[in-house]
Amino acid sequence: MDTINDEFYMSLALDMAERAQGQTGINPVVGCVVVKDGAMIGLGTHLQRGTGHAEVHALNMAAGKAQGSTAYVTLEPCSHYGKTPPCSQRLIDEGLARVVVACEDPNPEVAGRGIEMLREQGIEVEVGLLRNRALRLNEKFIKYILTKQPFVTLKSASTLDGKIATKTGDSKWISNGEARKIVHTLRHRHQGIMVGVNTVIADNPSLTTRMELPGLSPIRIVIDSALRIPLNSSVVCDGLARTIVVTTEAADSVKKAALIAAGVQVVVSGAGPRVDLQAAMLALGEMEIGSILLEGGGTLNGAMLESGLIDRIILFFAPKIVGGGAAAAGTFTFPGVEWMRDAITLEGLEVEVLGDNVCISGTPVR
Amino acid sequence: MDTINDEFYMSLALDMAERAQGQTGINPVVGCVVVKDGAMIGLGTHLQRGTGHAEVHALNMAAGKAQGSTAYVTLEPCSHYGKTPPCSQRLIDEGLARVVVACEDPNPEVAGRGIEMLREQGIEVEVGLLRNRALRLNEKFIKYILTKQPFVTLKSASTLDGKIATKTGDSKWISNGEARKIVHTLRHRHQGIMVGVNTVIADNPSLTTRMELPGLSPIRIVIDSALRIPLNSSVVCDGLARTIVVTTEAADSVKKAALIAAGVQVVVSGAGPRVDLQAAMLALGEMEIGSILLEGGGTLNGAMLESGLIDRIILFFAPKIVGGGAAAAGTFTFPGVEWMRDAITLEGLEVEVLGDNVCISGTPVR
Repeated sequence: MDTINDEFYMSLALDMAERAQGQTGINPVVGCVVVKDGAMIGLGTHLQRGTGHAEVHALNMAAGKAQGSTAYVTLEPCSHYGKTPPCSQRLIDEGLARVVVACEDPNPEVAGRGIEMLREQGIEVEVGLLRNRALRLNEKFIKYILTKQPFVTLKSASTLDGKIATKTGDSKWISNGEARKIVHTLRHRHQGIMVGVNTVIADNPSLTTRMELPGLSPIRIVIDSALRIPLNSSVVCDGLARTIVVTTEAADSVKKAALIAAGVQVVVSGAGPRVDLQAAMLALGEMEIGSILLEGGGTLNGAMLESGLIDRIILFFAPKIVGGGAAAAGTFTFPGVEWMRDAITLEGLEVEVLGDNVCISGTPVR
Repeated sequence: MDTINDEFYMSLALDMAERAQGQTGINPVVGCVVVKDGAMIGLGTHLQRGTGHAEVHALNMAAGKAQGSTAYVTLEPCSHYGKTPPCSQRLIDEGLARVVVACEDPNPEVAGRGIEMLREQGIEVEVGLLRNRALRLNEKFIKYILTKQPFVTLKSASTLDGKIATKTGDSKWISNGEARKIVHTLRHRHQGIMVGVNTVIADNPSLTTRMELPGLSPIRIVIDSALRIPLNSSVVCDGLARTIVVTTEAADSVKKAALIAAGVQVVVSGAGPRVDLQAAMLALGEMEIGSILLEGGGTLNGAMLESGLIDRIILFFAPKIVGGGAAAAGTFTFPGVEWMRDAITLEGLEVEVLGDNVCISGTPVR
């Protein structure tokens, strides 16, 4: 049974925001519950960039009866005119008595100003209820708003000896059905999905989101220094989602023109021979891609990790051992550290058992 | 709160047996509880090979008052004259009314005869209560009694990219304190501990059991095809436990004589150049070593795995990534399988989170 208190309503607001992950683009996910005289009078969630904020939807549902009520909001109400008028003003105009906020908005255009506005008008504001859950929910938004670079989640599935394929290159299948379902949830929740061109050449994947229900497919991003991507590959031809190929100045201009003619966006990042990954992340950020799921092979994973461009690592382990030494690709291919104490470490470790697979995830720290 | 029933007493008998793991050599661990008129009148555990069985200890505690009582025994009472008289006879002589047995004794000299003897004398016998727990508890004994070969547990600690050292060979420390404590429990519970000579040369380990309380150190077994083991290494000199070096006919006889003079047992297994691991297991079995903890490097682990000589795999994963490609040793070095579907699979998977380490264990199946 539940205890009805501030947490009771805030956790519903967070639940609503959680479900909306993946559909708000570079915007945060936000939920709002408005309560008056012991009952909920409005619920709202921010659904899509450019449409109403959570508070607006909730107050619209309350239909002018919010005078003296309490609003539970998972993120500080905005204070600036963006694509919509500021929510703080709306809360003031509707005569709210109390606003409970899970976490401050790190957006430099807000950053406390929303809370300040409410307090200046005599509204009681409490900040910090279920803050950690709220911050985690918007880790992608927070990274992007502060750095203008995408939040990168690396996902990989390996055997217990750290292999992502056998020595002959066979990788079907490493993880179980349960793990593969989660991968599609991850795709739905990221704006972009990134692979190396070798994955496209070897597997010709569609990189779309395939779930029990329809989902949102991310923008396909292929790192391809020398434009070796086949023009007849699925990501070029199938039209199931946008595709961006990131290459270098050294790439062939004829191939580049052919890709553009096929509807692919080509981003040039660095003089070559390898793609400048740091610059690529800035370019993708400028294109308003705020989150990327990296499903690379060992080389791309290793390069992204070494460049400090990965924000979260999600590893699925299958109960298999395949051997094969250097001929069998591993999760991360990079020169590596000399000493164990210099290892890249996963912090905030989470472990989930999925049938006979184990999911280990965390934040990489050097 | 507890429900007092057959399981209540049997689980105590199993608890007693469990604590005795490691101190009974090639013998099983067994617990016994005798209950009469609603109260326990005797408890017993088999403590050491050649000393009293669990039933004998329990009935001794009952001091002649076991007439009409129920005995809970974790393993079928023995029916043969071994190092002690048969327990079935003792139960009959004491006038037991009922015997509850967790599992049959797979020992071909018993295998149902103990239960039969009791039933022939009109004692009510029930078999199978908490059988799986009882079988698991004696998996080492069962393997040995049926095959005369040691049960081999492979233990390894790796990074998330499957490395047991960095590219410079640094491995201190991969796992955390909690995991390392468990390793010493594992040493206490195995009769032998096996490493390759490269581990002795690189780390000069003592391979003893070091716990908060004193424990039993296993016999050190070093696989050393060409007798490269230094005469001044700890396992040769420290006298803290017996040491066996397994080598080949090709090894230098002078070095062999020097090792024997230093108190080391030298076992010759195969003509060379590599130790014949299959033959080595048979030889160690003949020496009444019924269980071995394998703490090998990648090469020995891989060879033992390929030879089908590993009965249980226990892998500790630390939340680290070190890269280094082929220069950084992995948990298993062996030619490997061609197809993912041919991977060696861990069955009966168990996952335990130990702070920021994860322990994944199971039975390897080809």
